Amino acid sequence: MQERRVRVALIGFGTVGSGVARLLLEQGSAIRERTGVAIELAAVVDTDATRPRPVALPPGLLTSDLDRVLNDESIEIGIELIGGTTVARQVQHRLLEAGKHVVTANKALLAEYGPELYVAARKADRCIAFEGSCAGGVPIILALRSGLTANRIRAMYGILNGTCNYILSNMTARNEDFHTALKEAQKKGYAEADPTLDIDGSDTAHKLAILGSLAFGCEIPYDAIPVEGIEGIAVEDIRYGLEMGYVIKLLAIGEREDSRISLRVHPAFIHRDTPLARVNGPFNAISVFGDAVGNTLFYGRGAGMMPTASAVVGDLVQVATGISQRLFETQRLTSVEQTRCLLEDIGGITSRFYVRIMAKDKPGVVATYGGILGKHGISISGALQHEGVGPDSTVPVVITTHPTQQANMTAALEELSRTDVISGEPACIRIVDIPEDQD
Amino acid sequence: MQERRVRVALIGFGTVGSGVARLLLEQGSAIRERTGVAIELAAVVDTDATRPRPVALPPGLLTSDLDRVLNDESIEIGIELIGGTTVARQVQHRLLEAGKHVVTANKALLAEYGPELYVAARKADRCIAFEGSCAGGVPIILALRSGLTANRIRAMYGILNGTCNYILSNMTARNEDFHTALKEAQKKGYAEADPTLDIDGSDTAHKLAILGSLAFGCEIPYDAIPVEGIEGIAVEDIRYGLEMGYVIKLLAIGEREDSRISLRVHPAFIHRDTPLARVNGPFNAISVFGDAVGNTLFYGRGAGMMPTASAVVGDLVQVATGISQRLFETQRLTSVEQTRCLLEDIGGITSRFYVRIMAKDKPGVVATYGGILGKHGISISGALQHEGVGPDSTVPVVITTHPTQQANMTAALEELSRTDVISGEPACIRIVDIPEDQD
Repeated sequence: MQERRVRVALIGFGTVGSGVARLLLEQGSAIRERTGVAIELAAVVDTDATRPRPVALPPGLLTSDLDRVLNDESIEIGIELIGGTTVARQVQHRLLEAGKHVVTANKALLAEYGPELYVAARKADRCIAFEGSCAGGVPIILALRSGLTANRIRAMYGILNGTCNYILSNMTARNEDFHTALKEAQKKGYAEADPTLDIDGSDTAHKLAILGSLAFGCEIPYDAIPVEGIEGIAVEDIRYGLEMGYVIKLLAIGEREDSRISLRVHPAFIHRDTPLARVNGPFNAISVFGDAVGNTLFYGRGAGMMPTASAVVGDLVQVATGISQRLFETQRLTSVEQTRCLLEDIGGITSRFYVRIMAKDKPGVVATYGGILGKHGISISGALQHEGVGPDSTVPVVITTHPTQQANMTAALEELSRTDVISGEPACIRIVDIPEDQD
Repeated sequence: MQERRVRVALIGFGTVGSGVARLLLEQGSAIRERTGVAIELAAVVDTDATRPRPVALPPGLLTSDLDRVLNDESIEIGIELIGGTTVARQVQHRLLEAGKHVVTANKALLAEYGPELYVAARKADRCIAFEGSCAGGVPIILALRSGLTANRIRAMYGILNGTCNYILSNMTARNEDFHTALKEAQKKGYAEADPTLDIDGSDTAHKLAILGSLAFGCEIPYDAIPVEGIEGIAVEDIRYGLEMGYVIKLLAIGEREDSRISLRVHPAFIHRDTPLARVNGPFNAISVFGDAVGNTLFYGRGAGMMPTASAVVGDLVQVATGISQRLFETQRLTSVEQTRCLLEDIGGITSRFYVRIMAKDKPGVVATYGGILGKHGISISGALQHEGVGPDSTVPVVITTHPTQQANMTAALEELSRTDVISGEPACIRIVDIPEDQD
């Protein structure tokens, strides 16, 4: 077999870009031996040419001039690692127009402008490969596009943001409050200085839009995904949940029932014996249920310099050998032939719930509480109330419910807040029963 | 994009064959929509045309005449699901000679005669795809060949036999002895009437030979893999191991240190907090450590009609779209260019050990025991001895050791058996410390 040589350019020389450069420069010959593909790093484009990076580039490689890449016909692949949805979007368009394949880890851009970019890629007869956009180095996109392709995917449950999982794991294991755990995550380098996109759930929703469109074979409008973040989670609810057998995770959920697809991102209690419940710290995991394969789970580091670089360089090899183009053609076929999914409205979604109220120390609390839930057709599956009254004369009363529609729960909580038997707002967290496939 | 049409023939109409036929007949149009590949089942070959199967074939499809397939030039892919290493080997050769690609789930054949068949495939300019040979529908082979290709794989730890895992899980959870748990596995359909290849570790070793050759990029001579099965595991050792924090699994282990590769299959105690320790029942899982990606884990049903059919039909799509050929070319490159691995001899492997002796109720036991271990350079890391003496006046004394060479432990156990302070043979189980990659 002939060795395949390919010249590539890196656009964006930040953390992941440095990892990609390091892999190509330090492991290039080993990768060539393993794959038959010699990847030559022809240029690195970044507006900042002076900031120190953890990898030393050969002289002359670093430039701030994108045109040097666009005008060099020998460069076949552009690796867009700028991030964000403004400059990166223009760069991907210009790369495609210049006849280059695009490899990227930019989940926000693909979630929000994917269809537009895919059309541009087809027009240019080039492909976009994006394994690095979800779950770091875990090849979940390849699994969905190729390995599990004989399956109709029924459901998918993912822990897709390492920052949130690190924070929630520490809140759970060390009884820390949210802000202490967030600071620890920032100190460890797991959270950005501005962690908004992580903790408000947007980053997870970006990844769910990408994975959902591959799993369910349709375009997912990113802004149609209901999203809740983790900032409002109180450590006492994590503790009570644990007592009742549940662990809290920020979950990306995709479920299919006939032609209806439900996608959502929110904090959720899952049973402690579920494999996903044991995914701790900065790790990611995705459970995928297929009609033939049953339950599968994919686990690994969800972000970081080298794990994401592993995915990006894997994509470079797949583009060089033509595999990415074949998979991109399939995506074309499904997006052309299938209509948009029927996305379930959040109000119509059925779920179990965990609810905590701070009950005032007076008679009639349980009757009022139970009466309001009953009126809205919500039945109670479990309850927890420790003896003793707190310093403000309130006592936490925790219940879990049987499945009910979100709309019923919202109405019941509103009515509860207006009564005089509870203090403050009730805390409410969804319970997700991930289907069992044991034995 | 043009739809791709491909005619395939199934050879071997047993459990997995029935699953493949069912997927193709019942899900064919959904698979065509998802992948752009229309797979037409052109013939099903089996010597037994009368046995009832869980799927109804259209009339005229079932035949006992392989030549009907070999002589039909419109059939591009032969799916060999006969199993075993005799007839199947001839069938694969004849399919390749007739110019057909081969898709198979036959681990024994590929582990023992893989190189011979790969040469034949290259000569015929055809490929062999074998995702179904390991871990059922979990796309671990695709991950190793493609998704993780930017990584030098450092180590791999797998639970690859569902029968053994089901038996060991039940011995652990229910305190059952081996034979009771085996009968239960047979009743549930997880063990064959003759379960020898499963419980003696051969099936796991077959899979390790295949996965190891892909992970480490070299030919693995199957018969060079040291193998121990689970038949000798006593339920009391499982119980004592649990007390010390360990869970027993039949492990496939592949480790690389520079150019030396160590491969082995044996029962092992692993720490109960290791993700693999929580893989129960008939499930499989593989932990793969790559130098860039870190720790990854792939989990799912390791066998059975539909999970394996999921992998086989996934391969059909990959052959039809040309992806399998690209990956098969890579395999050619590595096997041509790389030398055989330096396979570590089992005697040279360093491990921790769990040892249980039945000590006679007399003075000097600990001194003798400790003296012999010390003489062979083995130091003790933990010990467990419950008070009280059994009905035969012996008492179980359990110790765990620090890492030592297998050869030292073998010599110490021999010497121990010859002393007069213990009764019977010592029980000895390796402890495998799967590297942590948390936080």
